[in-house]
Amino acid sequence: MTSNALVQGASRGIGLQFCRTLLARNAVVFATCRNPEQANELKGLQQQYGRNINILQLDVTKEGDIQNAAKYVEQNSEGKLDLLINCAGMLHTSGRGETSLRDVSHQALSTTFSTNAFGPVLMAKYFGAMMKKGSGSFGRQPAEKGKQHSSVLVNMSAKVGSITDNALGGWYSYRMSKAALNMATKNLSIELGRGRNKVICVSLHPGTVDTDLSRPYHKGVPKDKLFSTEYSVDCLMKIIDNLDSQQTGKYFSWDGQEMPF
Amino acid sequence: MTSNALVQGASRGIGLQFCRTLLARNAVVFATCRNPEQANELKGLQQQYGRNINILQLDVTKEGDIQNAAKYVEQNSEGKLDLLINCAGMLHTSGRGETSLRDVSHQALSTTFSTNAFGPVLMAKYFGAMMKKGSGSFGRQPAEKGKQHSSVLVNMSAKVGSITDNALGGWYSYRMSKAALNMATKNLSIELGRGRNKVICVSLHPGTVDTDLSRPYHKGVPKDKLFSTEYSVDCLMKIIDNLDSQQTGKYFSWDGQEMPF
Repeated sequence: MTSNALVQGASRGIGLQFCRTLLARNAVVFATCRNPEQANELKGLQQQYGRNINILQLDVTKEGDIQNAAKYVEQNSEGKLDLLINCAGMLHTSGRGETSLRDVSHQALSTTFSTNAFGPVLMAKYFGAMMKKGSGSFGRQPAEKGKQHSSVLVNMSAKVGSITDNALGGWYSYRMSKAALNMATKNLSIELGRGRNKVICVSLHPGTVDTDLSRPYHKGVPKDKLFSTEYSVDCLMKIIDNLDSQQTGKYFSWDGQEMPF
Repeated sequence: MTSNALVQGASRGIGLQFCRTLLARNAVVFATCRNPEQANELKGLQQQYGRNINILQLDVTKEGDIQNAAKYVEQNSEGKLDLLINCAGMLHTSGRGETSLRDVSHQALSTTFSTNAFGPVLMAKYFGAMMKKGSGSFGRQPAEKGKQHSSVLVNMSAKVGSITDNALGGWYSYRMSKAALNMATKNLSIELGRGRNKVICVSLHPGTVDTDLSRPYHKGVPKDKLFSTEYSVDCLMKIIDNLDSQQTGKYFSWDGQEMPF
């Protein structure tokens, strides 16, 4: 049976690597990004994998874009989605997190939250019904039927989104939006976990990964702590492969450790 | 010595009751609200307390309003603020929290976050310097000088903003914005806790209080769990009176219990 996976924020970084990994596993991938014309890596994957990858225009801050993409996916997936990964994220409109209150603005908070926190909830609003109909091909299915799940929803969070763990401060927009996203994951785990067709919802921390988002900070990261996207996604796929419905609503680090909120 | 306190969202509910309590303690109160002309209760307090209460126009979603209010307060407080309470809050643009994803919209998320989460951080941006110069008249001062504080910043949070405690789901905008606010409190406790003039920053859960915000839900609340604003603010003032700098960054319930994030 075909597995259908959607990666939101698929044109680069962790999202792009998830597409590669999922295509290599023979999943049908719906890869969404803001500017498909400029998504050269995704176009390259299309040449290699043909109809197994669908590249869709979707700006996660625009509810209309999400609605349009959901219509397309529904028509091209028999209405079933097995995995949804919300990857798009930003530190701040400037590309650098706020070092102090001086740098905080309503405008940057608003833009950062739209992508990091509001977008993933709106994705769940429009794709939740398809996820309820998933075939359960991702994650680990227990023998007991009542505990089986239909699909997995992953919100890409970050360790700096842990309020408990926050010892350094700063990065107001990013930290606050990831804390809000973790609350969204918990809420989604409850709403989409009701009844028989459970959707497992988790927040994942990918480690410090060599991507455009983290690039301004690479100098301060020890080499063995700066992960390639390949390594990070390998770790995250292992977590996803081991998920069962008992773990829904949780917040895991790349190494499988559960994080405090 | 005069104590200066600012209550943001002062025209009704918990904010209004904080004004009454602080005025009765002979503090000078800066009471901010969106529409001073319509704030009849605050006008009544002005008749009673005269120049000890200053009513200021401030829509916490408008950075310009905050900036203007900060200029006024600076000129009328000798640049010193001892207590700031961020009270303004909303459940959702409709007045009712979302019961499911169907009710979630970008628009309502954005508006709710502007008031509940972004506003309090922007208040700290413009009032932080005055709080650093506070006389430390609120909270409990330890004997050791290095641990003394200059002022107290309270963000009115809610129990439903605890991700750990969330067992029911729903209320996406409210829950997510209060989780973001709790992260803001933690961040502020770090940034404003540096150096000698520490600002103690806490999130407080006021209980379920008989206010306009909770009114649509009163039917479901047992009578002894629905607090008057007087009772809730009495409890919260006891917490504030007992705060020292060791407790900064924490999240307390009305009964003094520390809450998990």
